[in-house]
Amino acid sequence: QRTGYPEVIYGAGKTAQQIVGIVQAMEKRQQPILVTRVDLEKSAAVQEILPELAYDQTSQTLVRTAHALPAVGNIAIVTAGTSDMRVAEEAAVTAELFGNQVTRVYDVGVAGIHRLFAKLPLIRQANVVIVIAGMEGALTSVVGGLVDRPVIAVPTSVGYGTHLNGLTPLLSMLNSCSAGISVVNIDNGFGAAYNASMINHLVKEERP
Amino acid sequence: QRTGYPEVIYGAGKTAQQIVGIVQAMEKRQQPILVTRVDLEKSAAVQEILPELAYDQTSQTLVRTAHALPAVGNIAIVTAGTSDMRVAEEAAVTAELFGNQVTRVYDVGVAGIHRLFAKLPLIRQANVVIVIAGMEGALTSVVGGLVDRPVIAVPTSVGYGTHLNGLTPLLSMLNSCSAGISVVNIDNGFGAAYNASMINHLVKEERP
Amino acid sequence: QRTGYPEVIYGAGKTAQQIVGIVQAMEKRQQPILVTRVDLEKSAAVQEILPELAYDQTSQTLVRTAHALPAVGNIAIVTAGTSDMRVAEEAAVTAELFGNQVTRVYDVGVAGIHRLFAKLPLIRQANVVIVIAGMEGALTSVVGGLVDRPVIAVPTSVGYGTHLNGLTPLLSMLNSCSAGISVVNIDNGFGAAYNASMINHLVKEERP
Amino acid sequence: QRTGYPEVIYGAGKTAQQIVGIVQAMEKRQQPILVTRVDLEKSAAVQEILPELAYDQTSQTLVRTAHALPAVGNIAIVTAGTSDMRVAEEAAVTAELFGNQVTRVYDVGVAGIHRLFAKLPLIRQANVVIVIAGMEGALTSVVGGLVDRPVIAVPTSVGYGTHLNGLTPLLSMLNSCSAGISVVNIDNGFGAAYNASMINHLVKEERP
Amino acid sequence: QRTGYPEVIYGAGKTAQQIVGIVQAMEKRQQPILVTRVDLEKSAAVQEILPELAYDQTSQTLVRTAHALPAVGNIAIVTAGTSDMRVAEEAAVTAELFGNQVTRVYDVGVAGIHRLFAKLPLIRQANVVIVIAGMEGALTSVVGGLVDRPVIAVPTSVGYGTHLNGLTPLLSMLNSCSAGISVVNIDNGFGAAYNASMINHLVKEERP
Amino acid sequence: QRTGYPEVIYGAGKTAQQIVGIVQAMEKRQQPILVTRVDLEKSAAVQEILPELAYDQTSQTLVRTAHALPAVGNIAIVTAGTSDMRVAEEAAVTAELFGNQVTRVYDVGVAGIHRLFAKLPLIRQANVVIVIAGMEGALTSVVGGLVDRPVIAVPTSVGYGTHLNGLTPLLSMLNSCSAGISVVNIDNGFGAAYNASMINHLVKEERP
Amino acid sequence: QRTGYPEVIYGAGKTAQQIVGIVQAMEKRQQPILVTRVDLEKSAAVQEILPELAYDQTSQTLVRTAHALPAVGNIAIVTAGTSDMRVAEEAAVTAELFGNQVTRVYDVGVAGIHRLFAKLPLIRQANVVIVIAGMEGALTSVVGGLVDRPVIAVPTSVGYGTHLNGLTPLLSMLNSCSAGISVVNIDNGFGAAYNASMINHLVKEERP
Amino acid sequence: QRTGYPEVIYGAGKTAQQIVGIVQAMEKRQQPILVTRVDLEKSAAVQEILPELAYDQTSQTLVRTAHALPAVGNIAIVTAGTSDMRVAEEAAVTAELFGNQVTRVYDVGVAGIHRLFAKLPLIRQANVVIVIAGMEGALTSVVGGLVDRPVIAVPTSVGYGTHLNGLTPLLSMLNSCSAGISVVNIDNGFGAAYNASMINHLVKEERP
Ligand SMILES: Nc1ncnc2c1ncn2[C@@H]1O[C@H](COP(=O)(O)O)[C@@H](O)[C@H]1O
Ligand SMILES: Nc1ncnc2c1ncn2[C@@H]1O[C@H](COP(=O)(O)O)[C@@H](O)[C@H]1O
Ligand SMILES: Nc1ncnc2c1ncn2[C@@H]1O[C@H](COP(=O)(O)O)[C@@H](O)[C@H]1O
Ligand SMILES: Nc1ncnc2c1ncn2[C@@H]1O[C@H](COP(=O)(O)O)[C@@H](O)[C@H]1O
Ligand SMILES: [Mg+2]
Ligand SMILES: [Mg+2]
Ligand SMILES: [Mg+2]
Ligand SMILES: [Mg+2]
Ligand SMILES: [Mg+2]
Ligand SMILES: [Mg+2]
Ligand SMILES: [Mg+2]
Ligand SMILES: [Mg+2]
Repeated sequence: QRTGYPEVIYGAGKTAQQIVGIVQAMEKRQQPILVTRVDLEKSAAVQEILPELAYDQTSQTLVRTAHALPAVGNIAIVTAGTSDMRVAEEAAVTAELFGNQVTRVYDVGVAGIHRLFAKLPLIRQANVVIVIAGMEGALTSVVGGLVDRPVIAVPTSVGYGTHLNGLTPLLSMLNSCSAGISVVNIDNGFGAAYNASMINHLVKEERP
Repeated sequence: QRTGYPEVIYGAGKTAQQIVGIVQAMEKRQQPILVTRVDLEKSAAVQEILPELAYDQTSQTLVRTAHALPAVGNIAIVTAGTSDMRVAEEAAVTAELFGNQVTRVYDVGVAGIHRLFAKLPLIRQANVVIVIAGMEGALTSVVGGLVDRPVIAVPTSVGYGTHLNGLTPLLSMLNSCSAGISVVNIDNGFGAAYNASMINHLVKEERP
Repeated sequence: QRTGYPEVIYGAGKTAQQIVGIVQAMEKRQQPILVTRVDLEKSAAVQEILPELAYDQTSQTLVRTAHALPAVGNIAIVTAGTSDMRVAEEAAVTAELFGNQVTRVYDVGVAGIHRLFAKLPLIRQANVVIVIAGMEGALTSVVGGLVDRPVIAVPTSVGYGTHLNGLTPLLSMLNSCSAGISVVNIDNGFGAAYNASMINHLVKEERP
Repeated sequence: QRTGYPEVIYGAGKTAQQIVGIVQAMEKRQQPILVTRVDLEKSAAVQEILPELAYDQTSQTLVRTAHALPAVGNIAIVTAGTSDMRVAEEAAVTAELFGNQVTRVYDVGVAGIHRLFAKLPLIRQANVVIVIAGMEGALTSVVGGLVDRPVIAVPTSVGYGTHLNGLTPLLSMLNSCSAGISVVNIDNGFGAAYNASMINHLVKEERP
Repeated sequence: QRTGYPEVIYGAGKTAQQIVGIVQAMEKRQQPILVTRVDLEKSAAVQEILPELAYDQTSQTLVRTAHALPAVGNIAIVTAGTSDMRVAEEAAVTAELFGNQVTRVYDVGVAGIHRLFAKLPLIRQANVVIVIAGMEGALTSVVGGLVDRPVIAVPTSVGYGTHLNGLTPLLSMLNSCSAGISVVNIDNGFGAAYNASMINHLVKEERP
Repeated sequence: QRTGYPEVIYGAGKTAQQIVGIVQAMEKRQQPILVTRVDLEKSAAVQEILPELAYDQTSQTLVRTAHALPAVGNIAIVTAGTSDMRVAEEAAVTAELFGNQVTRVYDVGVAGIHRLFAKLPLIRQANVVIVIAGMEGALTSVVGGLVDRPVIAVPTSVGYGTHLNGLTPLLSMLNSCSAGISVVNIDNGFGAAYNASMINHLVKEERP
Repeated sequence: QRTGYPEVIYGAGKTAQQIVGIVQAMEKRQQPILVTRVDLEKSAAVQEILPELAYDQTSQTLVRTAHALPAVGNIAIVTAGTSDMRVAEEAAVTAELFGNQVTRVYDVGVAGIHRLFAKLPLIRQANVVIVIAGMEGALTSVVGGLVDRPVIAVPTSVGYGTHLNGLTPLLSMLNSCSAGISVVNIDNGFGAAYNASMINHLVKEERP
Repeated sequence: QRTGYPEVIYGAGKTAQQIVGIVQAMEKRQQPILVTRVDLEKSAAVQEILPELAYDQTSQTLVRTAHALPAVGNIAIVTAGTSDMRVAEEAAVTAELFGNQVTRVYDVGVAGIHRLFAKLPLIRQANVVIVIAGMEGALTSVVGGLVDRPVIAVPTSVGYGTHLNGLTPLLSMLNSCSAGISVVNIDNGFGAAYNASMINHLVKEERP
């Protein structure tokens, strides 16, 4: 791995002890570290041994920012409701650690579409747009129709009944009537940000 | 049944002969007649014996308008794409025969949202709004958020792959982030119009 | 928002603190307030800071009735069994706060159909009927066939095994052999009442 | 096999030639013969070689009644709509060939529940009741609540959209709020009649 | 209700207090009482006030046997494994309270088919056979092929992974290659026994 | 590829012309050739150009046996019904071309379990057993319980309604209460035979 | 629309006449035209009136290349099998018309992984990689793990049985263990190419 | 059962007391004993009475190795990630107790395919290969394409969202583009090992 390129650990289903072990094994490398899906209790147990990891409760992440690359370009993260926040912040923290500037545009769901319109100029400055939505995911199609950039859609598991734990916005996003949208797994804020970062860096760094 | 109130026959899975039989049995009643889901070939066979029935190919309906009640109030029928036309016209023909004025607002899907905005004043004049959409059905939530009237949503089977023959817009509509939306079966233009007509007539006729 | 028109907060997945914050932000507006999906413990935490909110355990709602509009018209809420009560009362509390008279007709499932027949005259006085049912949802079709008013059906998650957490009555309601039925999400008492209120007020107030 | 007890051949997916072969192999036994799921064309090919088989187009069956046992007891077959006829007649033909009297009560779906009530005395004379319904299958629960006999429910594939080819009435029947209902596969008129015949004969013949 | 005919209360989702209330309301009737789906803790709370109800932990039932009718005929209850016991005993307790003799044949799954064969003579003495199975439910077809009596099949939720909480044995039972099988909801021991009792009593009591 | 080891072409979705092209490209290799899923019409078009390929209509295969290895060991192919024949013969033809002796034991479904018992000694001589079944697939568990050899189960798409095009026997086989069973895709006779051949040859040839 | 930017018509479910109408309406604009999902017969009918449209049978597209922008950058299109060709060519034709250089790497599925390895240097020259696969879609994860570029995955409907018309590779792609993969609808070659083009042009043209 | 052949108890859903009872009943037989799916707490309760059973926390098994047969042949167990460890060790412990040598090749998922390649020589020494994978299960196809031995695939429930608790890798494995793969239930490490052991012993012991 290149210097400065983050190491990522998927914290769900790992004990604090296992996480500590993995982090210690990579400690000497000159890389930032990101642990996702860590709840408050587990994070405390990890921090006791590794106080250099900072915990963020909204995104449920543990992060060591040392050696992080400078932020370039711009990724917009757009959410429908406040309950999509955990996923949105997982994406935001990831994107920032991978060296991207992030524009947060939260709580602009289509039930009150004027809020989205007010933010359009901001969104349009980004190279890539991540749209995060639970419920029926309609925000994705509206943003996709208004913005001339690749949209990475993240369905969230926020909902009940026929929401089917996120299958409904997932299916909705895959069938969007707007072109230019691709989709990642339910609640996969990390995956969306990783993808967006790849595109953003292609734009910023790799043109011959 | 009251004079002028239409008799409806569900034509799918019935032979031309069976349809003729049912129509003849009710012929003496002073009521308009609507037969839904009749393809071109079957309609021709019916019309040979019952030339007073008019066939409309888009909506796949056979209609006898004699004795129909005068149209009152207003129902808006809004569709996302041109391929939702068959269902939309099934709804429109039904609504008209049940004595409602119909405003057609077709092909205003959210991929080009300005087309919808241009039509908003028109839609807002209706007592009830029927929204018909295939793909991901996002139009429903956008209309629901912009219009202060009951919205009856009809998912259509237009799409492919994960569209699952209409399950995707159905699920999307049931989970809409806009309040005031209720849903009928996939492609059920008749059911939506019947419902809308009931509401429209309540408003127009039955206030004590 | 118009004076007297309620503000609604979806309480599920929000902390007591978040709910308090949102309520305080809207406190100065002359509007009633409704918070749905609040359990006993969370309600206590909210009431400590906002004692003017009344908690109702059956419907799991917190309500501030100040500024509520006077009740007009009539909405009937019909349930199949006693276990559908939480959803029914969510609908009832919502309808009342939005200015509607509510007729409760509970526990009239089709296993003992005479109970339903005894209540028919009462139900028929309503402008709109909300039918709430778990199990197989058959009550919806029976009511729809007997009553000449729009029926809004709410499937509930009450059942086991092939009930699939409410998918069975949902599918049943969408395929009803009675016309005039539209459907909202599983357990969505609020949505049904919002819709019914819209229709009831159209009838009562808005005829030109 | 006992003399007079029918041999049954499932005709779907077999060629006319294969059916002829199987029938000829059992020709010498003193038993009636029933071939189910045979379309008009295939039946003609079979009858050319085996003219003693009678074809019934509604039930899609080929039958040789010679040696059939006398009919005893009574099985009621109740259907919701005319489109459930094929399945109902498959059940009726089966029940008759297995030596049962059959009472047909067709087209009494719950959208017009008075038709069912008019037939209740007739239905109550049966030892077993077969209820056949497509759409949402609500008829099953209503009959089950009104009749004190075992009810065997047959969901049919008649419907569209969320009907899911019969899964909706199947799920509905399995979750009936009326006790005393058991269910067979979608469109399985034969299976319901076989079961009902077993019960009817237990009642009529086998008490020691 | 006839004297001696049990009253049944579905205990799941009811509080001890609600159960007590319902039982007290029917206390004066000369009928046995059955409460299903009651766990140990809830049963203790009920028994404190109503010590005349006996609790059985395996079947999770509370029963008052006073006024029960004498047992007639014979119902066989056959299970595949020991983990199907809760459902089997719910069926057995129900059948006994409704006045039926019960033959328990447990743990005879097809992985060791000789155990089933050893019990066949016993099973064949019953008027009706209830087969209860989780896993793939293959026992149902084997019993159905060997026994000339109506078989009521109960899929159980015992299994993991693709067992899908009982959908797998349910589907398996609905598609059995043996005739004479009908199916009730997953884990519905009560429903199977109610059905079986109806058939058993038809045989024993009602022949003119 | 080793001399004598067959080349396999999946014929579904390929034109006769494409199949001819692929066969001609491999014509010079000293290998037998197997083309699966070829219907009668397509086979005729292929044979016009490549008359050395023999067509078998039951298994829907085209085969060139030249250079085939001698048959060793023994694979039993057991089916529940005659309608599983196409899949069974696809497996048999494959197994034979890959150098295995095949014992066909067809039409021994559990509805008449004595037929299976009569064939047990024959089945037990095989090194591997392929069980092919539609309907509910119960045969797999019964064979698995009686035979001390690896069983490869193939669900078939033969059935209707809740059979779900083979998903029901697939799920049933994956949840078998007998150990020693593994499963391949619906209708995948080729895959089962390829697997069985691998095992049979391990036994026969590769012990050091 | 900008000069040179293609107009796209979704041809499925449109008649030749409708397609002609839409093309003629946009004929005067200085833009290339792409019609997708057009079968041979329909294309002939369109070409009779509009001979300037070129038909490509593999991709099922009609194209007017006049005014197309020059191709820049590089998009790799990688497929697992030859049967994924239709979707792959829909993607390729789209990408080319939108002004991208395309590298086709076909038939490199993981059953013979050396074929993929031989092509890696070629694939790595692209700015974006489109991976198209039916069956189990494993190719996506392998490519994603080997290539440091955004991967857009397209599941295809090529398969049978549990393939579920493409749901299996879709689910597989959404759960890929390789980061950097996003997914579009089943068979949506157009959508993947549109996305890829957007990214490729961002890289090539829009860096400030 | 033969001397030395293990007795297996499925511990899930059994109390410590029930497990003790079953073990004591078989205690005198000269056979090793394996109890699967036992958590730490339950194991402690069992060991208090039966200290001769050894508990292994990773595999969640209790084992009595006395009388175990000597290990022969070789089974490779290959996993994609560390979170598949519980299932892998359930398979390993089972295989060893049934008298097989086991080669563990863990954490070689396709996201870093070089790790798998490094281990290929080791894997190729086995008679059978068990591949255990969650996520999208792509490892199965890659191993199947590289190794000329029967592969038994075990999908695991490790994942989230569209992983559907293991259905995704299950479907993926059933549709593998590599031949020679058969599949067992989700998380069924025991079943895979039992199967593999049967094959391995066929190879090692039973050639005439
Ligand atoms: N296109 C349609 N979709 C759904 N329901 C319909 C449709 N057309 C008619 N119906 C309903 O079917 C009833 C007539 O059914 P039938 O007696 O089978 O002709 C009407 O009263 C309507 O309630
Ligand atoms: N375990 C059970 N499973 C299914 N239905 C039951 C069960 N126990 C009771 N019932 C049914 O539920 C009815 C009582 O429901 P409730 O009025 O809610 O207590 C009874 O008359 C039975 O028909
Ligand atoms: N009937 C079949 N079902 C499943 N897979 C098959 C079948 N026939 C052939 N195959 C597989 O498909 C491969 C050939 O695929 P293709 O290159 O598309 O012809 C063979 O090597 C087999 O692994
Ligand atoms: N093969 C395709 N799959 C999915 N979407 C397509 C395809 N071809 C065209 N489209 C989309 O459909 C739109 C045109 O739809 P229409 O107006 O119905 O012709 C285009 O702008 C594309 O976004
Ligand atoms: Mg866009
Ligand atoms: Mg609105
Ligand atoms: Mg009505
Ligand atoms: Mg009854
Ligand atoms: Mg039988
Ligand atoms: Mg065995
Ligand atoms: Mg990569
Ligand atoms: Mg291999």
